Amino acid sequence: MARIVMKFGGTSMAGTERIRRVAGIVKRQQEAGHEVAVVVSAMSGETDRLVNFCREADALYDPAEYDVVVASGEQVTSGLLAMHLQALGCKARSWLGWQLPVRTDDAFSKARIESIDSPELLASMAAGEIAVIPGFQGLTADNRVTTLGRGGSDTSAVAVAAAILADRCDIYTDVDGVYTTDPRIVAKARKLKNVTYEEMLELASVGSKVLQTRSVSLAMKEGVRVQVLSSFIDETAPPADSLPGTMIVSDAELEGLEMERQLITGIAADKNEAKVTLTRIADRPGAVAAIFSPLANANINVDMIIQNVAKDKGETDVTFTVPGADLARTQALLEARQEAIGYTRLICDSKVAKVSVVGVGMRSHAGVASTMFRALADRGINIQAISTSEIKVSVLIDEDETELAVRVLHTAYGLDGE
Amino acid sequence: MARIVMKFGGTSMAGTERIRRVAGIVKRQQEAGHEVAVVVSAMSGETDRLVNFCREADALYDPAEYDVVVASGEQVTSGLLAMHLQALGCKARSWLGWQLPVRTDDAFSKARIESIDSPELLASMAAGEIAVIPGFQGLTADNRVTTLGRGGSDTSAVAVAAAILADRCDIYTDVDGVYTTDPRIVAKARKLKNVTYEEMLELASVGSKVLQTRSVSLAMKEGVRVQVLSSFIDETAPPADSLPGTMIVSDAELEGLEMERQLITGIAADKNEAKVTLTRIADRPGAVAAIFSPLANANINVDMIIQNVAKDKGETDVTFTVPGADLARTQALLEARQEAIGYTRLICDSKVAKVSVVGVGMRSHAGVASTMFRALADRGINIQAISTSEIKVSVLIDEDETELAVRVLHTAYGLDGE
Repeated sequence: MARIVMKFGGTSMAGTERIRRVAGIVKRQQEAGHEVAVVVSAMSGETDRLVNFCREADALYDPAEYDVVVASGEQVTSGLLAMHLQALGCKARSWLGWQLPVRTDDAFSKARIESIDSPELLASMAAGEIAVIPGFQGLTADNRVTTLGRGGSDTSAVAVAAAILADRCDIYTDVDGVYTTDPRIVAKARKLKNVTYEEMLELASVGSKVLQTRSVSLAMKEGVRVQVLSSFIDETAPPADSLPGTMIVSDAELEGLEMERQLITGIAADKNEAKVTLTRIADRPGAVAAIFSPLANANINVDMIIQNVAKDKGETDVTFTVPGADLARTQALLEARQEAIGYTRLICDSKVAKVSVVGVGMRSHAGVASTMFRALADRGINIQAISTSEIKVSVLIDEDETELAVRVLHTAYGLDGE
Repeated sequence: MARIVMKFGGTSMAGTERIRRVAGIVKRQQEAGHEVAVVVSAMSGETDRLVNFCREADALYDPAEYDVVVASGEQVTSGLLAMHLQALGCKARSWLGWQLPVRTDDAFSKARIESIDSPELLASMAAGEIAVIPGFQGLTADNRVTTLGRGGSDTSAVAVAAAILADRCDIYTDVDGVYTTDPRIVAKARKLKNVTYEEMLELASVGSKVLQTRSVSLAMKEGVRVQVLSSFIDETAPPADSLPGTMIVSDAELEGLEMERQLITGIAADKNEAKVTLTRIADRPGAVAAIFSPLANANINVDMIIQNVAKDKGETDVTFTVPGADLARTQALLEARQEAIGYTRLICDSKVAKVSVVGVGMRSHAGVASTMFRALADRGINIQAISTSEIKVSVLIDEDETELAVRVLHTAYGLDGE
């Protein structure tokens, strides 16, 4: 017997027929002898509908009331899934965020989970009751409702898995695993059997969108084994242990699972980047801090940063990237500080994309970056910026060349399947 | 300065524009110097949508999970109204049923309020914050979500008014007061300036639908002054004290308000009745208990009961009415007990209506019932059952003759206006 957390996203919960299918999948997992907790998202489209009401109410809406409104979507699907499970003869009950409770900080609309109270939940599960838990929602110390930010249900699922010491957290999505790259771009993309937390983190943060980044960080921190698999399986199929999803595991576990690891695990592309260039900044101490401190204070994540070699007259250009959604705010912040920073021109470009090659294998191999640069150069793709980490090399290119770059790199690193 | 509870129904909360209007009405009440708590329903249509999901999930759905699902509708409108009030510059916050909390028994889907914790609420209101409270929802001692049954938001409003010792509970509806009868049936119906709790109780329970019966009982028990008025007023109009709604008051207060009270206050009709007849029941002690005990245990309200005079062979027929919505359950319960009860046939008829004449004036006047029977007989309307109370006479008739009966009686008791 294992203890398993299963998480279903909005597409899987969109309407009676789909929730019934989910109930079937959950039931089979229980029938296989496991203790089961299920974490659910709102029906797809529902959160958008609720967010719209909030925006219409007040452009600068109170995030605490926003959370009251949007948390309702997961409440609905939790109750409904419990009913569907009961209709199939299972014992089941919903546990709302404030009932467990899922304690969070009070950063409304982007709260972080601090703890999940589990004894009552575990007792109920041990008694054979399937626990249905709304994702995305929590409770402050003041007993106000919070939500974790869009896509927060993955994080809820991992947090529940950590709290109840689950053997596995199965994330059912509308894809059937993690691929070497987006199969819509590269038909020869292959599904990965295993991927490490760090690889997944890099793949997620650069746009793979299979899992929310925070959920992967949390899984890594708490050592939760996460499996990504498709919710569009036949609900009469064998339970998830034997389904061909992708397991997200630690480096150590990966070594036990795969003797020979390819150099590169996957290629990711992210078009939601924007490039900002400030020209002719005085090349003096503190100049760069004057640019990035206000952005950090405004919670804008700066990704790649390039400072060109100083030109004559002690001046330099600085280029960096921010999420496209933050470009307008970034521009406003920098324009207001033109004098303090001392730049000549502010140039923004949202028609860029970041393409990354990711793999724990590159730790022990040289030449990954040069292969990348050569492959792109051969096809005439111009690199505007470069950044690297231990297991990733990213380049910023023209947005129009994204798909071409991904295909070229997928082939260059030998990732193409049949 | 007064302390006022304002309640808005689903039609008033249906969408951004309407909630904005409600916020305007509430703001003006606060500007008039009052402490204000607002109780809201879900957007009209929303509860039906959620109930449908429950029915699709499981025909015999778990009422505890049903409550989790349907309570979400009021949660949404509470958060949104708080935002709309903030957008108008008011301080406001939502207080969900479990946050106050509104403690109820554990009769899921038709719970009864036991207490409302008010100190925190009162402190917030005293600090100038408008309290927005979702109607319909509560919390058991076990911290499970409950709802009060359809239309329960009126009861929530009265309970909140009682808990915070409000000076008045204003119920904003889609009609502008209580009429002598449904104006859609009788064009000459007149709006009543005042009506007693007991009259309102009889008018509500027989289908006037302006207020939920339980809310009126609670108001009577707790001595809450209730005002019914239209939410489709100009939100820039003077606050509700001076609006021409209907006040629901005690007998004693009514005497001070109206010297001359008409014999009959109003006529009500209810098509949501169903008639059940059991034939040839053994006329022995306990036979009737065998019929009605299981219905009482299943929380089915039996209204009119007629036991025909015993026929030969010690047998009798029993006819009674139940809410139409409970007919299927009633039928199932009785069929399962055919042997124990010992009846021959079970005959159900949902094509019936109950028409009632109501008025505290009839306490001191004879002849009310005979006027009714004669008026109906003159138009050939057949009476299938009769029941009376101190201030009401009701008859069960063919559903098709409902409107005709109401018109005939409205005229017969001299209620027609110009």
